[in-house]
Amino acid sequence: MTKLERNALGRLVPVEINGEPAVPFPGVRKHRPTGRKAAPPIRSCVDYPADGNKVVADLKTALAAAGLRDGMTISTHHHLRNGDFVANAVFAAAAELGARDLRWFPSASFPIHAPQVAHLESGVLHHIEGSMNGPLGDYCSSGKMRGMAVLRSHGGRWQAIQDGEVHIDIAVIAAPTADAFGNATGDRGPAACGLLGFALADSMYADHVIVVTDNLVPFPCIPWQIQGNHVDQVVVMDSIGDASKIVSGTTEITKSPDRLLIAELTARFCDEVGIVHDGFSFQAGAGGTALSFAIFLRDIMRERKIKARFVRGGSNKYLTDMLEEGLTDYILDGQTFDLDGVRSMRENPRHVNTSPFTSYNWHGKGNFASILDVTVLGATEVDLNFNANVVTHSDGLLQHGIGGWQNCLFAKCTILPIPSFRDRIPVLLDEVTTICGPGELIDVVVTERGIAINPLRQDLLAAVRGSSLPIRALADIKGEVEEICGGKPERARFADKVVAAIKWVDGTVIDSVRQVGS
Amino acid sequence: MTKLERNALGRLVPVEINGEPAVPFPGVRKHRPTGRKAAPPIRSCVDYPADGNKVVADLKTALAAAGLRDGMTISTHHHLRNGDFVANAVFAAAAELGARDLRWFPSASFPIHAPQVAHLESGVLHHIEGSMNGPLGDYCSSGKMRGMAVLRSHGGRWQAIQDGEVHIDIAVIAAPTADAFGNATGDRGPAACGLLGFALADSMYADHVIVVTDNLVPFPCIPWQIQGNHVDQVVVMDSIGDASKIVSGTTEITKSPDRLLIAELTARFCDEVGIVHDGFSFQAGAGGTALSFAIFLRDIMRERKIKARFVRGGSNKYLTDMLEEGLTDYILDGQTFDLDGVRSMRENPRHVNTSPFTSYNWHGKGNFASILDVTVLGATEVDLNFNANVVTHSDGLLQHGIGGWQNCLFAKCTILPIPSFRDRIPVLLDEVTTICGPGELIDVVVTERGIAINPLRQDLLAAVRGSSLPIRALADIKGEVEEICGGKPERARFADKVVAAIKWVDGTVIDSVRQVGS
Repeated sequence: MTKLERNALGRLVPVEINGEPAVPFPGVRKHRPTGRKAAPPIRSCVDYPADGNKVVADLKTALAAAGLRDGMTISTHHHLRNGDFVANAVFAAAAELGARDLRWFPSASFPIHAPQVAHLESGVLHHIEGSMNGPLGDYCSSGKMRGMAVLRSHGGRWQAIQDGEVHIDIAVIAAPTADAFGNATGDRGPAACGLLGFALADSMYADHVIVVTDNLVPFPCIPWQIQGNHVDQVVVMDSIGDASKIVSGTTEITKSPDRLLIAELTARFCDEVGIVHDGFSFQAGAGGTALSFAIFLRDIMRERKIKARFVRGGSNKYLTDMLEEGLTDYILDGQTFDLDGVRSMRENPRHVNTSPFTSYNWHGKGNFASILDVTVLGATEVDLNFNANVVTHSDGLLQHGIGGWQNCLFAKCTILPIPSFRDRIPVLLDEVTTICGPGELIDVVVTERGIAINPLRQDLLAAVRGSSLPIRALADIKGEVEEICGGKPERARFADKVVAAIKWVDGTVIDSVRQVGS
Repeated sequence: MTKLERNALGRLVPVEINGEPAVPFPGVRKHRPTGRKAAPPIRSCVDYPADGNKVVADLKTALAAAGLRDGMTISTHHHLRNGDFVANAVFAAAAELGARDLRWFPSASFPIHAPQVAHLESGVLHHIEGSMNGPLGDYCSSGKMRGMAVLRSHGGRWQAIQDGEVHIDIAVIAAPTADAFGNATGDRGPAACGLLGFALADSMYADHVIVVTDNLVPFPCIPWQIQGNHVDQVVVMDSIGDASKIVSGTTEITKSPDRLLIAELTARFCDEVGIVHDGFSFQAGAGGTALSFAIFLRDIMRERKIKARFVRGGSNKYLTDMLEEGLTDYILDGQTFDLDGVRSMRENPRHVNTSPFTSYNWHGKGNFASILDVTVLGATEVDLNFNANVVTHSDGLLQHGIGGWQNCLFAKCTILPIPSFRDRIPVLLDEVTTICGPGELIDVVVTERGIAINPLRQDLLAAVRGSSLPIRALADIKGEVEEICGGKPERARFADKVVAAIKWVDGTVIDSVRQVGS
């Protein structure tokens, strides 16, 4: 039985994860790291082809050359999203080579990665450390995975690799375009996805790095988002992904009147409290509400002739339009969500490629997230302490990753624009199913029934005094919602087994997820 | 007395340098590194300002915050060349703070850095590890420096930092433009120099990193050639350098008829042996002869409608013209030598910023140098074994750095176009004063009296069979030169004391330089 301890938020969390010690969350900004960063082996040009040609026959050859052994950790990345063909090919090859008990360390997994369930069943895979949804989320939640899942934010993944918490034996990087030396980019090619930032830490810290491409160009591949000097082998596949599932052809904004209202209230709130000023910055997530918020904000900026200094992406047509219209000096982008985002990143030097290192790594000398004037994020649940959940649903199933969500909470103002209930189930609760973000970092919750400001932010409460905005206490909104929905929601039923640990940005454990069912 | 051993080239080299063990050069591609890369301390955002503003009052404040102590290693860089104001300011501040016995680890030093002689005399500085010329070279050659100098190539400097051979306590990076977070670029600002690649390793591996700028811009400084996430403090000075001495306003080609002939012979040689073909690549140094070579080569390319895939810089107007004319797809640039180079790097996405990591690091997974079809370099002396010298003159004085010279020797064809004598002193010798590059890596020596091909390159000898080019044995040319100059040159007179160790690209010691005089 996993030994559990209560952390600073009162949540029971494991003190050992898959045989390694784990530190319970001691509070925001309380944990201090010690020691030195992970140090990959020193290599020598003696062992690499002088002409720079690192292409080998196939993935099996590359994995064998990497010294694939039982129990190793193999990483892949989610920049090809639900169109990714590479991760499945990697574990099919590893299975053919007879490997067992591997740890898969994806930056995220998608429904397309369902074939890994068979490898978990057969013993090729021991467990997954990375966000899971669809069939893999169900599998994990059912308690069938041998090891404990570990969910990290994008910044937390960088931190874990950099700090040596997760040692990657073999990183496999899907590259929409690459040269034979291993220089690689995501901004062009049949499977273009924009950028490869989620794979950057792996390229720097893994013992062995394999680049897989379906678009080999003559040296040099420019830009080199991944530097060939980190790469051991290059593998050419017919196709690394299904373009139609990698980025959208178009980006759809929400048509729901409630969500449009929430988005508009959020933009108006930002304006009224003085966030929208010349040289300001914002980040909005990828969902329909966040997107609509960006459009309402754009209209305010146009009307008032206000220019942002930078906008953080997830980019899409609406952000690139703002860049091209001159409403922002820069987009600092972590991923591109549609074809306009990919094109803009490829063509516009003011649309800048970032990585979890620059944007989110808590164990760096600062990062971009806390410089932002406002960040607008989603959540599956929020409780009266403003704690929020992004990984589980009210049924307890692990169905979402953390993404950059935890990292973004450090913005000067963090706003969650969310509906107060979904499918007649309240989103505002006494206690969230899983705490992913501590309430002290969540400043504002905007619902279709009103705006709740965290009492810790007396400055914001003062700024809206006398405003026509529907400012209300969170408990007040919650009470109204419970009346509409016929009471508090039924809590999910869990077994004792901890199936996943939720890491905080500093590597400590903020919560755990239990097997669903009793 | 320094203990010496004979290395694979028969040169006596120290087996201990400033108290640390040193490995005699065992032959090209013979040394294999072990162990893991240097690992800087893990930091936390807890200790950095959330708003990203790392500006402090002045250099003294920053050095004190960095915990400056006696015996520390401080690095600076030579991208501001003989116009640099920053290194002098650093050691003036360190002296005011009372520091003693510091090691200065510049990527190179210039005559403007003469004030450090006083700090060597007073005890603030213990010794310098980095190329020296002018007064510092004289000081070192005179045997007055307390520690032993260590000269490394640009790639060797990366290797030494990366491998932990040189631990940098405090890196100070002069930045022509920077933001308060520490993001920095060299491609704009009053002291624009092009790029900051020589400081990149320091930013990644030093315990403490200080950025010094005279052009502070609002976050984000784009491009971020140096990432603020590596930076501890930012200092603003009135002026970091004298623009007129950083890059030239214009680039001058040689007017010497002999050197023009050498340049033309070199270009014709490249053409006749088949190097000049569609998609080829070349690198030429910064000297007048190398520059003229590039112009002759350009004319051949124009005439034959041949396009290079990439050209390696040191860039200047002639290379950027070639890029703009479409004679090459890319310039992969390590430093810009004139204002056209700076402009092109700033404006043209095909003019790409490189670093010693991508281009030269021997302890990487390959590097760019060996991918080049031809590299054209200078030398102060060459001997009958094709060994060459770039650091000392015939008088024995240490007066030049290695630069990227050693790293470039790994090109598919390495050519030294040099005059056969200078100031009536033969350049072709029985034995060079200092071996910087082993003859087995030097393929061709082109003089005004003929072209000598290394007998190891039977393929090149075969390729010129029947050619009208003046192909001669090196000994033959050497004999003719000695007749003209009235015999072999007088050898410099040296004392026993080793004043400098010359490192090979892998960190082993290829030669030593002795105190001048007897």
